[in-house]
Amino acid sequence: MNEQSPERAAPPRRNHDEMRVYGINACLALFAQRPHDLRKVYLLESRIAQLKTVLAWCVQKKLGYRVVGNADLDKLTASQHHEGVCFEARRRTPMALTALLQRLAPHKNALLAWLDGVGNPHNFGAVLRSAANFGVDGVLLSGDAALAESGAALRVAEGGAEAVAMARIAPGEDAFGALRNAGFAIAACVPREGEALFASRLPSRLVFALGAEGEGLSRGLIDRADLHLTIPGSGAVESLNVSASAAVLFGEYWRQRHAAATRPPRR
Amino acid sequence: MNEQSPERAAPPRRNHDEMRVYGINACLALFAQRPHDLRKVYLLESRIAQLKTVLAWCVQKKLGYRVVGNADLDKLTASQHHEGVCFEARRRTPMALTALLQRLAPHKNALLAWLDGVGNPHNFGAVLRSAANFGVDGVLLSGDAALAESGAALRVAEGGAEAVAMARIAPGEDAFGALRNAGFAIAACVPREGEALFASRLPSRLVFALGAEGEGLSRGLIDRADLHLTIPGSGAVESLNVSASAAVLFGEYWRQRHAAATRPPRR
Repeated sequence: MNEQSPERAAPPRRNHDEMRVYGINACLALFAQRPHDLRKVYLLESRIAQLKTVLAWCVQKKLGYRVVGNADLDKLTASQHHEGVCFEARRRTPMALTALLQRLAPHKNALLAWLDGVGNPHNFGAVLRSAANFGVDGVLLSGDAALAESGAALRVAEGGAEAVAMARIAPGEDAFGALRNAGFAIAACVPREGEALFASRLPSRLVFALGAEGEGLSRGLIDRADLHLTIPGSGAVESLNVSASAAVLFGEYWRQRHAAATRPPRR
Repeated sequence: MNEQSPERAAPPRRNHDEMRVYGINACLALFAQRPHDLRKVYLLESRIAQLKTVLAWCVQKKLGYRVVGNADLDKLTASQHHEGVCFEARRRTPMALTALLQRLAPHKNALLAWLDGVGNPHNFGAVLRSAANFGVDGVLLSGDAALAESGAALRVAEGGAEAVAMARIAPGEDAFGALRNAGFAIAACVPREGEALFASRLPSRLVFALGAEGEGLSRGLIDRADLHLTIPGSGAVESLNVSASAAVLFGEYWRQRHAAATRPPRR
């Protein structure tokens, strides 16, 4: 552990194309999905057995790895939730929206989530984990999408980030046009006065648009959406947390699609 | 701001019966539900207008309040998420399980959540927020239930903690017996091999038992449960986060009860 200054709480990344990924599930998922993006490995001695395939890869590819102490990992990751491992890895470049849409089979069920204003890394990571669980076909990000994938978000996603395609919406891009051309309906998820989620028959190609905690969805997105959905509730709190909302929405889409697959078609 | 030592990151509470509550929604909900538990108020100048009813109450009841700076609040709450307000308040005493069960109307729909091993305050607070949203009738805690309600948990719950009854399960207490006598079925929520949630007809008086992130439910609870439920998924991640699971489960119970209320009864 001789390359890092141990005084700094959050050492700068070497460059913008790399990032530090931590948390055992996040690291294992990265290695399983894109081993060629791995640059360097830091780990506790107690993680060696679990990471031996990764270390063998490092030897083969002449990548550095270092057995370090817990305090070193705290500093490298600026977190106490590293779970004994930190990778330096190439940052994924989110694909263009059009590229994502081309990957999806036409006319088939498909679910996307549009995050309008990336919230804090914990919410973002939690949304990615639920998206991975429910097989969401892609997450769309407006704003600085490339930087949304922080180490904290990936750790909270527990490996889910690697399983979900990520696309950026460029400033000025006609995302509504592109999505509608590809057969998608855009559902703005709003805290009140939308159609009640559980009473609503969800379109088979659907985008759930979710706003950042606090600010909510931008007015333009609400105005242009094809439908407006509200998760029902008692009124005791203003709304669900954005990641809880996402889990409920993704789950309801899953439920309706699977129910549709087993029940006779409506006339 | 002359009573606190500004050097300490997390000043000790004066005693075990009091706690520091922060976050605007958590504080407003506390004041709305149990103003007599308020002991002292710290706030930023910018929050005075929003809290004027609270300050009037302080004057009337001879409670102290102090306009402080942001850094003071950071220290008082040991958090940067205080949102400009901190209350010192009496800690709620969770009620006994039998007392909670006596409050619930017999033979009616009722939903409880049993948290087996209180997880981190963020997960706990997130579960409380979703429980409040979906009108869950009570949250049962094993372990040191009184201390589960931290300032962080209450802040994350966004006021939801005040809307949800909280009961403790004492060591050695026959919680299964008490719940079954009150007509409840206990559903162990497990990451795999349970009945698929969305294909399952949920009992009208139901306890969702949820384990702490990582450890999961205790074996004894799984073995004794009346049913075992699994939220379906793609398999890309091992499971949902416990608070995402709770939101999906509470939402599905809500959906089934409301659908049951509007459709003709089955023969």
